[in-house]
Amino acid sequence: MSLPDEIRTFIRAHRDDYTRLLQDWVRDATLSGQEAAHQAKIRDLYQSLGLDTDYWEVDIAALRDNPLFNSHRQDFTGSPNVVGTWKGSGGGRSLILNGHVDVVPEGDHAQWEQPPYSGEILDGCLYGRGVTDMKGGNMASFIAVSTLKSLGVKLKGDVILQSVIEEEAGGAGTLAALERGYRADAALIPEPSEQMIFPRQQGSRWFRLRVVGIKAHGGTRYEGVSALEKAMSVLEALQELEKRRNDELEDPLYDGVPIPLPINVGRIAGGDWPSSVPDEITLEGRVGVGPGETVADAQRDVESALAALAERDSWFGEHPVDIEWFGACWQPGGIATDDPLLDMLSTAYREVHGESPRIQASPWGTDGGLMTQYGIPALVFGPGITRLAHFPNEHIRLDDVFDVAEIIALAVLRWCGHDE
Amino acid sequence: MSLPDEIRTFIRAHRDDYTRLLQDWVRDATLSGQEAAHQAKIRDLYQSLGLDTDYWEVDIAALRDNPLFNSHRQDFTGSPNVVGTWKGSGGGRSLILNGHVDVVPEGDHAQWEQPPYSGEILDGCLYGRGVTDMKGGNMASFIAVSTLKSLGVKLKGDVILQSVIEEEAGGAGTLAALERGYRADAALIPEPSEQMIFPRQQGSRWFRLRVVGIKAHGGTRYEGVSALEKAMSVLEALQELEKRRNDELEDPLYDGVPIPLPINVGRIAGGDWPSSVPDEITLEGRVGVGPGETVADAQRDVESALAALAERDSWFGEHPVDIEWFGACWQPGGIATDDPLLDMLSTAYREVHGESPRIQASPWGTDGGLMTQYGIPALVFGPGITRLAHFPNEHIRLDDVFDVAEIIALAVLRWCGHDE
Repeated sequence: MSLPDEIRTFIRAHRDDYTRLLQDWVRDATLSGQEAAHQAKIRDLYQSLGLDTDYWEVDIAALRDNPLFNSHRQDFTGSPNVVGTWKGSGGGRSLILNGHVDVVPEGDHAQWEQPPYSGEILDGCLYGRGVTDMKGGNMASFIAVSTLKSLGVKLKGDVILQSVIEEEAGGAGTLAALERGYRADAALIPEPSEQMIFPRQQGSRWFRLRVVGIKAHGGTRYEGVSALEKAMSVLEALQELEKRRNDELEDPLYDGVPIPLPINVGRIAGGDWPSSVPDEITLEGRVGVGPGETVADAQRDVESALAALAERDSWFGEHPVDIEWFGACWQPGGIATDDPLLDMLSTAYREVHGESPRIQASPWGTDGGLMTQYGIPALVFGPGITRLAHFPNEHIRLDDVFDVAEIIALAVLRWCGHDE
Repeated sequence: MSLPDEIRTFIRAHRDDYTRLLQDWVRDATLSGQEAAHQAKIRDLYQSLGLDTDYWEVDIAALRDNPLFNSHRQDFTGSPNVVGTWKGSGGGRSLILNGHVDVVPEGDHAQWEQPPYSGEILDGCLYGRGVTDMKGGNMASFIAVSTLKSLGVKLKGDVILQSVIEEEAGGAGTLAALERGYRADAALIPEPSEQMIFPRQQGSRWFRLRVVGIKAHGGTRYEGVSALEKAMSVLEALQELEKRRNDELEDPLYDGVPIPLPINVGRIAGGDWPSSVPDEITLEGRVGVGPGETVADAQRDVESALAALAERDSWFGEHPVDIEWFGACWQPGGIATDDPLLDMLSTAYREVHGESPRIQASPWGTDGGLMTQYGIPALVFGPGITRLAHFPNEHIRLDDVFDVAEIIALAVLRWCGHDE
């Protein structure tokens, strides 16, 4: 039996074990700050594979001065990173397989058909918050390494499995791994791409906007200025800016994407009494950063659009919108479309699926942007379902997890090289 | 010296004492639920005037079935009512002088030039949350009664001084006083009318709207539905409804008022993550109820306008805006423009100011609407500054307090009659 056939056979033979393990992972509600128990399991699994395993709590003080650091947290207590290194025999290329364990809040439970952390399986799909973003992808990487190890493969280059924190809020976990010295010739991140290959990725930057008004009694509201009515103008300005930025974007990798670089307002709050005119509204959101621009470029666009409000409404001249760039920041990034990793992954895809992969730019940032900043070519390719990330009823097709595991195993073999 | 001259002289002679007392009242931060210490002071003051004084904690259970009851509270612990009755010798008309002690929250402290409960006096104005709405008015009523008592006046009709809770959130204090049996031939409420007389008053009704969407990752926001974008449509529909209702209003007492029946949205909240599409937005506000319509009429208008959103956007057909009529409700009300109380108050105004008063419909509800429902003609006439109610830097002109005190004393004399 050829090695590729052995890989496929091994994965199929152990499918039930890996499925149960993924159910177990999904049942860990690894919200930001609550990852420790899950990461301890990952540490034990890495050790059981014989990897050099590094489990550490991220020291926020050592990261604060890094210009790429972004976090709303005061410390990372309860949020350790885990890295497992499989040392190659030498002479091959090294590869990072990176994935995050933090999940976003589950939202309104009433919109979930199962409890959010059920791990239930229905019609070949496994359900739960974080299964598509991205514990299913983490499982695919784990299966790939576990399979190659079990089959006694001797790689030439190193494989570095990374189970990181904080991807959803700025990437401090991956940044900490980079700063701890974990580097490689390339990185693959199995975020939920539906098995499309994303050689380029969108970055994004969070903003907090404060819009002010003047308080008044609701019955004489004309004596005040409603911060909410002003916030509506701000929202319209952001909608216009989004349209303009996307109309101007020219990148064939975004063909067919309805809004390549979205501006999303995710939170709003303001006012303290139903019958008072609200005097402050806060808006929080994210602006997408194109692969061909910097985070600073996108910030300048938002700042200009909000400053231009003063031309339409003198209120904003006297009370400009206060803009805070806070919390999360994903760097845009990517690799050249003729990069050998892209070629090798495409070849592996064809071996498994019998057809060529779809290649696009990602609609969102990943920690691959940070890898790019450190000179590590990174691409995204994973089993999850893009539109279910951050959604109620998040789930993943189990077949996709195992297909991606097989493709990653084949790509690792070719990229790192192995002793025959 | 004539009795009117004696009244004026007495008030002027005691101006400093009353001013200090008003400073003391303003320094009591009588937010909803925190009125007990202040009301105990009022009880002692009423007793010191020799009034039959009734101080009681309002029993919410006894009010719940009353169709006019509206409150978001579970009980009224810490919020007693006080009523002081000055029994007349008989044969005269009785008069309620009603005022509330609860104040609205002070909002953003940064917008206050003094601390919100300073009681500071600058350029003849006394500053602090609640001084215009309506402790200055309460002081005017108190001075009027205190002066007449001190001058040994013997009234024929009863005067009933009421210091009530909860006007700002539904009128449970006045409702409790009515249910406890306190009725009269008329009521005067010195809410902040800037010495205009309001023989008619606007009611209002609070609403809470829930607008839903579908959660999604902000980077693929086109896969979800933003509840915030839908909330913008709701806000526009409310703006259009407000315009239509006011265009249709015909009441000469509202001439010169920019928006006679405002619809005010005072609070907004929704979303839980900057880079997620928000799936629920809550809006809280109030709709003004015209003196010529019922609360139910206004509610129906809002319900129809929001139901009509489905014609513009099929989302609202499948996900109609959820409307909750919660918390506060002020009944509209008023008296006929040829009511003898209006005439008597106008006469007293002319005696003090040498010119006729301005007569309008009020831009907001007061507990006078509840009086109207119990058949008690009620009008509003007070010293506070309308546009400062619920505002930062709320203050009152002290001269106005003493002018209104004198006018009320003269009106009481004429309305109740007195033994020569």
